[in-house]
Amino acid sequence: MTREAWVLGAASNRFGKMKESGREAGARVALEAIQTAGIEPKDIGYTFVANAFGLSEKQAHVGPLINTALGIPEVPSCTVESACSSSSAALHEAFVHVAGGFLDAALVVGVEKLSQLDTLTATSYFAIGADYPFESHNGATFPGLYATIADAHMKRYGTRREQLGAVSVKNHLNASLNPHAHFQKPITMDTYLESPMIATPLRLYDCCPFSDGAAALVVVAAEKYPNPHTEPLVIRASARAGSIADMHDRPDLTSLPASQRAAQTAFRQARVEPGQIDFMEVHDCFTIAELVALEDMGFFPRGQAGAATAEGLTARDGKLPVNPSGGLKAKGHPVSATGASQVVEIFEQFNGLAGPRAVPKTSVALAHNVGATGSSASVHIFGRR
Amino acid sequence: MTREAWVLGAASNRFGKMKESGREAGARVALEAIQTAGIEPKDIGYTFVANAFGLSEKQAHVGPLINTALGIPEVPSCTVESACSSSSAALHEAFVHVAGGFLDAALVVGVEKLSQLDTLTATSYFAIGADYPFESHNGATFPGLYATIADAHMKRYGTRREQLGAVSVKNHLNASLNPHAHFQKPITMDTYLESPMIATPLRLYDCCPFSDGAAALVVVAAEKYPNPHTEPLVIRASARAGSIADMHDRPDLTSLPASQRAAQTAFRQARVEPGQIDFMEVHDCFTIAELVALEDMGFFPRGQAGAATAEGLTARDGKLPVNPSGGLKAKGHPVSATGASQVVEIFEQFNGLAGPRAVPKTSVALAHNVGATGSSASVHIFGRR
Repeated sequence: MTREAWVLGAASNRFGKMKESGREAGARVALEAIQTAGIEPKDIGYTFVANAFGLSEKQAHVGPLINTALGIPEVPSCTVESACSSSSAALHEAFVHVAGGFLDAALVVGVEKLSQLDTLTATSYFAIGADYPFESHNGATFPGLYATIADAHMKRYGTRREQLGAVSVKNHLNASLNPHAHFQKPITMDTYLESPMIATPLRLYDCCPFSDGAAALVVVAAEKYPNPHTEPLVIRASARAGSIADMHDRPDLTSLPASQRAAQTAFRQARVEPGQIDFMEVHDCFTIAELVALEDMGFFPRGQAGAATAEGLTARDGKLPVNPSGGLKAKGHPVSATGASQVVEIFEQFNGLAGPRAVPKTSVALAHNVGATGSSASVHIFGRR
Repeated sequence: MTREAWVLGAASNRFGKMKESGREAGARVALEAIQTAGIEPKDIGYTFVANAFGLSEKQAHVGPLINTALGIPEVPSCTVESACSSSSAALHEAFVHVAGGFLDAALVVGVEKLSQLDTLTATSYFAIGADYPFESHNGATFPGLYATIADAHMKRYGTRREQLGAVSVKNHLNASLNPHAHFQKPITMDTYLESPMIATPLRLYDCCPFSDGAAALVVVAAEKYPNPHTEPLVIRASARAGSIADMHDRPDLTSLPASQRAAQTAFRQARVEPGQIDFMEVHDCFTIAELVALEDMGFFPRGQAGAATAEGLTARDGKLPVNPSGGLKAKGHPVSATGASQVVEIFEQFNGLAGPRAVPKTSVALAHNVGATGSSASVHIFGRR
């Protein structure tokens, strides 16, 4: 009963430090995505913004500001928040509106600017995406929470530091080929191993950076765009799930149940198996998160993603490229821009715009985006028309 | 191509000052709404939260916390923000998911807790819903912005202080009959006229209070609930619109174009005329806003809503009851709970639960909710099955 929906255009700025405000960056990438799609702003029927920590810029309600800048002030908008999975949640709303026949074209804009904050304040902002009174208030901010996951994974499965390091080295290498990336130079395993400890066992190069950034997507009804100007991404699945909010209440620390559920739903919707995915962008806010994601979604048996990564299977030219963009780890993690930027990477790969970081096969791709320590997760699967 | 969607259950706490946190109040009213609907938490397929200023409680990403408290942690969620129209925007998302066939039941929870802030800080929080650098930063917070609207309306149409006062006196009287209301005593016109000036020409009793509060709705697909336990609200229209964000860029200060657009769309969707609306809840954050809303939506010719109100046409027992709940003015305005609470009032009126504030006719009702100074607006129209 639903219509086929496409990502017809996509754009991102360079992640890192933005001089302009979030609203300005958001409007700029939105216009670029609209132009990439070959449509006009007036074709947009709804704008879904993700800007979880906009209050750090003293600005909420960003949709009308972006729409006004685009010359379409009459278009309705809302902001969608789901911590670090905000813009994949916004994409889900856009998908539902378009696939359900309520709109022919929707705009998704994810933007975050946090560089005006010092690291401690930024960490505190991030921490309110977890359960603040029970976790963050007691000192368990995200580096500590993911360190707990890493520790449990190492103890249960024998995951080794060098395997976490392999994620970091791979993603920094990919980012060095990505003009949108925050970090654009490769690192060595030695650099990784010698980097300062942040939250045992996670070191500096296990952690994604605080980044500013903006990314935008144009989602359209396929039937309304018979002659697309781009190679559109067919949205074959758009799935979300939740899980128990607090890590201390979960039965298992080595898995994020929301990732499992969202992936299972997505594979069912898209009618594909994990083996049919050509490449993917996954939520590697910390190196351990990439390994857990690959295991949760069924790409590797429990405890084996680390060895697979160390063997190069997930390298850009490996059997199953993971995070060819550089991932959150090295492309950067501007909270609310992250989910949309994963789709920008898939769009560029599908459209032959990935240059030297092109992956071998681009028929079916997956994007996996996590909110907090997995109390929310989104999985999207894209194919060719 | 869409399915009929109903509001099957609704609940609100008493607005005012909450001792419990937003997440706790949200979970409590959510459970009450689910019980009112006669369904179980496990029937919910998605939770849409509105909690625009949750950061004032150091808590974002509230959906997983509420779902965990309800015993349904696996259910996906997101937060929807559109300044003071956040929970009507969340209701719109719930409607689209259910009417589009993506879900059979969705939960909408609007909650705000601001009483821990002093008035100046609370005003600053509210102000980030407007265009902060261009308006709020220059001192134009909401009382000043709506005072500008009032001033323009008085100058152009001869709207008088006593007419603004009639809105306030009416809404306080209605609130005195509403156990959910923040203010539960009537005021006299003298009290209104003698109240302290806030932003010329608006006085204290022209302004809604800062309130804490929570309200929740259960939205279901009609076809899945053949024997409802309540008199459901049939969602005959769910429309949203935007407008130029900044008041100083708009050609006319006496009208909110987003209200006009959203209402026109809603009347078209519902196939009704303004004359067929039996009663309504409108966004009276300031008394002038109620008059402008009534004119923008076509219920009275321009400049005549004040006289109509002074004549008693919009009283609870008048020809067209407006804000029988007491409105934002007197029931209170807990930002993100407001839109949902308007629908709670309509639900109680339709179900014979409004006690002494029952309006004469309850076949078709309208809810109108504004974000900021009208850069967003939502209009919903409800009927009987």
